Amino acid sequence: MTAARRQWKLRRALLIVQKYGGTSVGTIERIRAVARRCLATQRQGHDVVVIVSAMSGETNRLLGLAKQISELPDERELDVIAATGEQVSVGLMALAIQAEGGRAVSLLGHQVRILTDSAFARARIKDIDGRAIAEALDDGKIAVIAGFQGVDAQGNITTLGRGGSDTSGVAVAAALKADVCEIYTDVDGVYTADPNLVPNARKVNRISFEEMLELASLGAKVLQIRSVEFGMKFSVPIHVRSSFNDNEGTWVVPEEKAMESVLVSGVTATKDEAKITMHGISDQAGIQAMVFRPLASAGIVVDVIVQAYVEGGRTNLTFTLPSADLARARDLLVKQCGHLCSADNIKAETNLSKVSVVGVGMRSHAGVALKMFEILARENIAVQLISTSEIKISCVIDAKYAELAVRTLHDGFELGKPV
Amino acid sequence: MTAARRQWKLRRALLIVQKYGGTSVGTIERIRAVARRCLATQRQGHDVVVIVSAMSGETNRLLGLAKQISELPDERELDVIAATGEQVSVGLMALAIQAEGGRAVSLLGHQVRILTDSAFARARIKDIDGRAIAEALDDGKIAVIAGFQGVDAQGNITTLGRGGSDTSGVAVAAALKADVCEIYTDVDGVYTADPNLVPNARKVNRISFEEMLELASLGAKVLQIRSVEFGMKFSVPIHVRSSFNDNEGTWVVPEEKAMESVLVSGVTATKDEAKITMHGISDQAGIQAMVFRPLASAGIVVDVIVQAYVEGGRTNLTFTLPSADLARARDLLVKQCGHLCSADNIKAETNLSKVSVVGVGMRSHAGVALKMFEILARENIAVQLISTSEIKISCVIDAKYAELAVRTLHDGFELGKPV
Repeated sequence: MTAARRQWKLRRALLIVQKYGGTSVGTIERIRAVARRCLATQRQGHDVVVIVSAMSGETNRLLGLAKQISELPDERELDVIAATGEQVSVGLMALAIQAEGGRAVSLLGHQVRILTDSAFARARIKDIDGRAIAEALDDGKIAVIAGFQGVDAQGNITTLGRGGSDTSGVAVAAALKADVCEIYTDVDGVYTADPNLVPNARKVNRISFEEMLELASLGAKVLQIRSVEFGMKFSVPIHVRSSFNDNEGTWVVPEEKAMESVLVSGVTATKDEAKITMHGISDQAGIQAMVFRPLASAGIVVDVIVQAYVEGGRTNLTFTLPSADLARARDLLVKQCGHLCSADNIKAETNLSKVSVVGVGMRSHAGVALKMFEILARENIAVQLISTSEIKISCVIDAKYAELAVRTLHDGFELGKPV
Repeated sequence: MTAARRQWKLRRALLIVQKYGGTSVGTIERIRAVARRCLATQRQGHDVVVIVSAMSGETNRLLGLAKQISELPDERELDVIAATGEQVSVGLMALAIQAEGGRAVSLLGHQVRILTDSAFARARIKDIDGRAIAEALDDGKIAVIAGFQGVDAQGNITTLGRGGSDTSGVAVAAALKADVCEIYTDVDGVYTADPNLVPNARKVNRISFEEMLELASLGAKVLQIRSVEFGMKFSVPIHVRSSFNDNEGTWVVPEEKAMESVLVSGVTATKDEAKITMHGISDQAGIQAMVFRPLASAGIVVDVIVQAYVEGGRTNLTFTLPSADLARARDLLVKQCGHLCSADNIKAETNLSKVSVVGVGMRSHAGVALKMFEILARENIAVQLISTSEIKISCVIDAKYAELAVRTLHDGFELGKPV
């Protein structure tokens, strides 16, 4: 460490983890730009760790090769192939930092080492050994870490699933007790609604982990859900910002007092939802398990579930699921739950959307749900199913009204106004 | 292991290592064809280990990306990037074997583990741990190993240099004490001369390691030199054959009695040779070291060296080197050896070729050199430099006569005739 740098360290050196997505490293020119940004941060006296994704389009190209060989490829081998996307990126990024006059070393999942379970294609991080990274930093280098990939206890290459580099970034930040994990993306931060749908959507300056978790689950694509869980669990402040400018983005942080004064932080809508209703099934103990066990075994994820008693010991069971799984789910139910209700009474409906409002302020304010229903009713949008949590309200509606619902809720809750 | 397979094992099971080059795995269709060939070998009752190169063109594409960032990229990072080519290949090959109904598992350099030194981009194998491969074979699987790559003691990814997959193949075969290492390529085997130059060039059925070593050093591109060295050192029979048919190829084996009856096994020519002559340098002790030390330090490989005494304590020193290094070499000599002879006396010449005949039969037969000179003289081809070893004779000639020399030597030694 140079004397100048040591002095900075004494003053206010931070350990900063920066994660760059596929678009941010999509061309050689962009890789160079990221390298300059990393170096600028280091030259301010900070220790810098960079996590990179595969160049945009690369993961799809690689998986496309595998699909040409097999419709249902072995996931262990798929991970071996997919992990090369990030491997190329870290090598190029280290070279780019060196070409800009800096020092850098790339580290792959098994070199770091990012230990995961053996659930190929959707592995979960169990432990991160920070020593190789710390060594690089002590040596004055920028550590360039491959996102998305890890290694299991047997030494097999694993990947964390789509968007997994976000999780790599926050998990590495947690392991190193970093001061911040900056997630660089192609938008300026987290918005009160999708700016493509709502022109006056406003960038949120600060948002709580819990709100972000709900927003991520509900269709806001800016952060992978598990990365937010990691941030919350290990109290790593996450700063979501654009790699194309120097603007402050959105800080995702533990809940703060001030946040409660805001009733609703954001509005989201998911698409491609479907619904199955089983009419008049006999209301005996354990029927829910009978219905959902075959679906779970088939890997079908059920979302909103509503059960309503009818009469004469009969009940209606309704739930939503991704449209893509609808036909398969209905087949399974007809085959395996035929003793509960006849096929005619298993109704499927598609083209639905789930519109949600999220905000920690709801905890201490009554009437948010009522206000949501009133706003939707004013536009004659029929609500088919309702699901609530402590900090969110979701309504399942006809998909053709989704954009209208988001816009009108955004206006109704006055989200476009500066706080 | 199935009962049928165990029975085969008792009868004549072999451990076969098959190495496939970039052309053999250049498309998804070819990968499928290789997978079928591996399975056919396994179904004959053998244990099969496959080594694969990157799909043809892939290594160049990857290095091209790096070159866009840096003219002189860090070789550690270059290896991280280049190694992904083979990583993709092994994943795809394992998937293809599975798609054809077989069982397979891919293993990367660090998973095998293929331990090398830390000379990035030209690493040398120090040790191979065969346990992960043996485990896969015991499990009835085909082990698919990434060629070209290894890992050093610190866990850094290394590569073995161009053509390194040949070396991976033979080294893995040596470590496993395999019965044979089959090197699959796009030609039928080793020929008495380049078939593109000599239409009646004949495929050699058996050739000794030493002859193959000379041929590989002298421009025959069918096998990487180090792979032959490994085969010789560990007595691994190498079978060079085509991946596009089932023909027997060329066996590279320890020297056999019968081989001595053949005077010459092959004729080769290298291109792009250059020559430097230093005239009238004073013949004091150690002048050779003074001349070649600066060249060696600059990484310039000198080939044929001839020194001839002139008179009055003066001597002429002549040597060949790659044309590409000529200008740099002459500059170094003028700068650093100016006290030995003036710049005017350092003559450079380019557009040369080294034509060689190779054969273990030379050891026990006199007159091969004379015959070579006579054949060249008959075509009025002037010989500028001569270099001999126990089993080869090389003549440096004007490059424009190279093809003529190869053809006329091939005919003169009657290599086109069946043995």
